[in-house]
Amino acid sequence: MRLSLTQENLARALASVGRVVSTRTSLPVLSNVLVATDGNRLRLSATNLEIGINYWIGSKIEQQGSLTVPARLFAEFVSSLPHGNIELSAIDNVLTVQTPHYESKINGISAEEFPLIPTITSDPVLSLDAGLLRDALAQVVVAASADEARPVLAGVYMYTEEKNLFLVATDSYRLAEKRVELEEEPAKGFSVIVPARTMQELVRLLGDASDVVEIYLDENQVMFRIGDVELVSRLIEGQFPNYRQIIPQKAETSFDIDTAEFLRITKVASLFARESAGSVKLEIKAEGEVSIMSSDSEVGGNKSSAECEVAGDDGEISLNARYLTDALSVMKTPQVTFAISGKLSACVISPTGEDVVDDYLHIVMPLRT
Amino acid sequence: MRLSLTQENLARALASVGRVVSTRTSLPVLSNVLVATDGNRLRLSATNLEIGINYWIGSKIEQQGSLTVPARLFAEFVSSLPHGNIELSAIDNVLTVQTPHYESKINGISAEEFPLIPTITSDPVLSLDAGLLRDALAQVVVAASADEARPVLAGVYMYTEEKNLFLVATDSYRLAEKRVELEEEPAKGFSVIVPARTMQELVRLLGDASDVVEIYLDENQVMFRIGDVELVSRLIEGQFPNYRQIIPQKAETSFDIDTAEFLRITKVASLFARESAGSVKLEIKAEGEVSIMSSDSEVGGNKSSAECEVAGDDGEISLNARYLTDALSVMKTPQVTFAISGKLSACVISPTGEDVVDDYLHIVMPLRT
Repeated sequence: MRLSLTQENLARALASVGRVVSTRTSLPVLSNVLVATDGNRLRLSATNLEIGINYWIGSKIEQQGSLTVPARLFAEFVSSLPHGNIELSAIDNVLTVQTPHYESKINGISAEEFPLIPTITSDPVLSLDAGLLRDALAQVVVAASADEARPVLAGVYMYTEEKNLFLVATDSYRLAEKRVELEEEPAKGFSVIVPARTMQELVRLLGDASDVVEIYLDENQVMFRIGDVELVSRLIEGQFPNYRQIIPQKAETSFDIDTAEFLRITKVASLFARESAGSVKLEIKAEGEVSIMSSDSEVGGNKSSAECEVAGDDGEISLNARYLTDALSVMKTPQVTFAISGKLSACVISPTGEDVVDDYLHIVMPLRT
Repeated sequence: MRLSLTQENLARALASVGRVVSTRTSLPVLSNVLVATDGNRLRLSATNLEIGINYWIGSKIEQQGSLTVPARLFAEFVSSLPHGNIELSAIDNVLTVQTPHYESKINGISAEEFPLIPTITSDPVLSLDAGLLRDALAQVVVAASADEARPVLAGVYMYTEEKNLFLVATDSYRLAEKRVELEEEPAKGFSVIVPARTMQELVRLLGDASDVVEIYLDENQVMFRIGDVELVSRLIEGQFPNYRQIIPQKAETSFDIDTAEFLRITKVASLFARESAGSVKLEIKAEGEVSIMSSDSEVGGNKSSAECEVAGDDGEISLNARYLTDALSVMKTPQVTFAISGKLSACVISPTGEDVVDDYLHIVMPLRT
């Protein structure tokens, strides 16, 4: 293998690819990144066996070849180099990296030991704006379960319905649903569950990309392609809960409030809710005020209030402050609506304001007190 | 106790005072901050028994009093509040914090249980510009020892000589000496060893203060006063090593180099020096190049070079890359001089360039290879 490319391109690719690398693994080759020529481009690949990534970089290839090298060392080294041209060459699984003032030899492992990262060759099921998908996913993935006890809850449910893409996640204590309106109805609708970790990685990978992202599916896998990058992941098998039935259809009490102010009083209240594992009580007064109460026999207690515009009667509900903080942190609008239907029904947080599209809702289950 | 003050002032004071609080302590009151009226000001105090801090804030005092409350909770709470006026009141060691929309009760401990933070009432031994002292200390404290095996090495040696204040630290592997020229010779010279942790805290406390800092001394203690803040610390007893004798007086080989470039090649080399605990070899070629070599049987090896202006013969020396990185990271000038006198003598790094004052040197002991 012998080729040259720019430090800027290689450093950027290694930073993206390196996040997928297994850090704790009994199989040393999984800590490595595959460096392989592919026609007139260089391909970097990494996998943790659940997620795989392929990243192609334009290069001047003089001799084809491949090997794997420790991902972290290679990335740190390249990111430390000055901008400009870098020459890579490999003999006997040792990678030589050369610039006018730097020469390194990095011991690698044969490319043959690297697991195959599958690709999907069928047509994409959907193409959409990368920024749109990133923002939508970031609003949803927060509600996915962090544990694998119920595998479907550790994923993001992604399906199409007419001209809409829906993204849904729930850990059974809260639920987030985002609707993305598509430019046209997809030729073939679909419905899959993608691991939340894949989606978190995708959000980072989409970064500030302004490209289009293409989504590919086969029976067990999903692939996202953004320009010269492919992210491949297994799908989660199983049936996503019929979540629509738990979305309350009417509200006894609701209020519109400044999002930042609501987040602030929630955060303050949570400081005094550690003993109670985050339990806080919201009291809504019809004349236009919401108060959040928390108390902790050890540290003390707090009552924080904010003005708001109430529709309906007085009301109250007990919640986990963390779920409310998470929900408010991903709201994009300066104002939100918070709606409840008694102490035992789920509450709904949704964007509000003039010209705001009704395309997102976040549900938090109440605590019984 | 009953008083009012602004959120901005209280939050700033709590952030400074909170850093001194013991986080792991068997004595609960040491995790607390003392809140006490003092004439027409509020005094916040914290101590970890080695360092103590007193911070006065202008307040509208309505009723004198004092108590202690958990420092971290109080600081987090106040920093979350909106700007504006805050009312504090205390009854039976419960602190009530009130603003128009927030009311908290924080359980405290009686002020009587809080250790006395001593003060020094004699005249200051020195007054100097806060920014000057902060920058000088930051260049020196990095060389102090992190362990207490030899207590004097875990401190910064601070002494006056004619119109100069000297700050010196060494962990026996490297040494940093800074000379600060004073406006006038102090009436009474002094020579003390201040714990490095105190100096690190002082660097943070001086922050971007543009005030004057006054230094007070008594037999066992030092006090730094910046405006309405006092930092009090024990002194380290013992004799600082006679360090001047290890400063090489002449150089066989030296070179002037761009500081950032030298730092960059050192950092790159250190990536390949993990197995050898940081050991790298510098090779200086009289025709104007320095190379840093490192190798690691597991990961590989590296040679990084940079152009420089050499005086004297070819030379080489082995060093710990971390010490060189630390030294270069605190250099303030775009160019530095690196000087050696054979493989077994200490090397000297010092600022260089037109109009550069010769007031700092950093010595690193060689590794025997």
